[in-house]
Amino acid sequence: MSLFHPHKDISTQTIRRLPQYLRVFYRLHGYGRELVSSTVLAQETHLLPVVIKKDLQAVGAPSKLRAGFKVAGTIQVIEKFLGWNNLNKAFLVGVGHLGAALLGFTGFKNHGLEIVAAFDTSPEKVGQQVHGIAVYHTAQLTSLIAQENLKIAVLAVPAASAQGITDTLLAAGIKAIWNFAPVRLEVPDGVVVQQEDISSGLAELCAKLKSR
Amino acid sequence: MSLFHPHKDISTQTIRRLPQYLRVFYRLHGYGRELVSSTVLAQETHLLPVVIKKDLQAVGAPSKLRAGFKVAGTIQVIEKFLGWNNLNKAFLVGVGHLGAALLGFTGFKNHGLEIVAAFDTSPEKVGQQVHGIAVYHTAQLTSLIAQENLKIAVLAVPAASAQGITDTLLAAGIKAIWNFAPVRLEVPDGVVVQQEDISSGLAELCAKLKSR
Repeated sequence: MSLFHPHKDISTQTIRRLPQYLRVFYRLHGYGRELVSSTVLAQETHLLPVVIKKDLQAVGAPSKLRAGFKVAGTIQVIEKFLGWNNLNKAFLVGVGHLGAALLGFTGFKNHGLEIVAAFDTSPEKVGQQVHGIAVYHTAQLTSLIAQENLKIAVLAVPAASAQGITDTLLAAGIKAIWNFAPVRLEVPDGVVVQQEDISSGLAELCAKLKSR
Repeated sequence: MSLFHPHKDISTQTIRRLPQYLRVFYRLHGYGRELVSSTVLAQETHLLPVVIKKDLQAVGAPSKLRAGFKVAGTIQVIEKFLGWNNLNKAFLVGVGHLGAALLGFTGFKNHGLEIVAAFDTSPEKVGQQVHGIAVYHTAQLTSLIAQENLKIAVLAVPAASAQGITDTLLAAGIKAIWNFAPVRLEVPDGVVVQQEDISSGLAELCAKLKSR
């Protein structure tokens, strides 16, 4: 198995740090920098040099002995690892405060995700644009997913509606859900769910405060 | 050291899963359930029983041989570990879409955090209430932090303003910052920063999609 999935063993923690490295490398690349040491990366990210080295070596970042990591090559390797060299289209469902905040986040396009339409049931929102993205009625989800041959959905609905919407999304052909609703979704095998849980961050903060 | 900080070695991943366990245990406790097996917990959380056992044993959850974990006792142990048995007051700075979404999140109070006031510079927001929480002008931050003897701030301002606001917060006596701005903050030793990075979740989603 591992021969065919060379990245299977990379830890979630490493994966979660990759966007942070990418931001630093983009900036350095903008300055025309060709090489960067893990010491400099440590100053930029506040992470330990040993962690940085391990993370970047895990994704196969190219380096030069005693001179550090190659900037352009490392960007390519991370983008390819995450699939961020291609742009995936996605729908967002639920245009409340959080949904609107997600529509306003300009970073997704650099991160392989383009939210092309949003969906809500509120008559005040349907037909409007939020951050330049058109809001359709949720009743149109099934037909528009088919029409656009879409595979990814971002879910920002209340917890009580999340499973119902999920069933609709999956029946229409969605294969991956980025779920911001505070509820575990029941999905068949093969469907990818990325669960965001605001209280996980709060738990980290509290644990750090207690151990201070 | 480890004698005085018995929880120091608990991994970030374990800490991030604790709120999820807590939600399941609260619900079971509501049903009057006294014991729960890791098999049942696995069905509820979609995590492996071995991961659940390791996590709960790490925080010292009480269990009964072959019958599983004690529901009431495990709730106490996790709440105490995270300090969620006490309520910490906090200010939120930046009432954009994301800030408003955070003010509307009812879960924080169960998670040891009470946002008691919000701050913004927009004349349209100052003097209003958002989800029942009063919005003050950012110029009042310093005096109100001193007056309330506040230690925790939630930062939901644009990246460009984040460091400036942070310097103000720290000068006024804030000791912990939950940062939703997409920028690394420079803070002195001893100040706790919990960085939320939306693109970390997206990186996880993309890595799962690629390895499917």
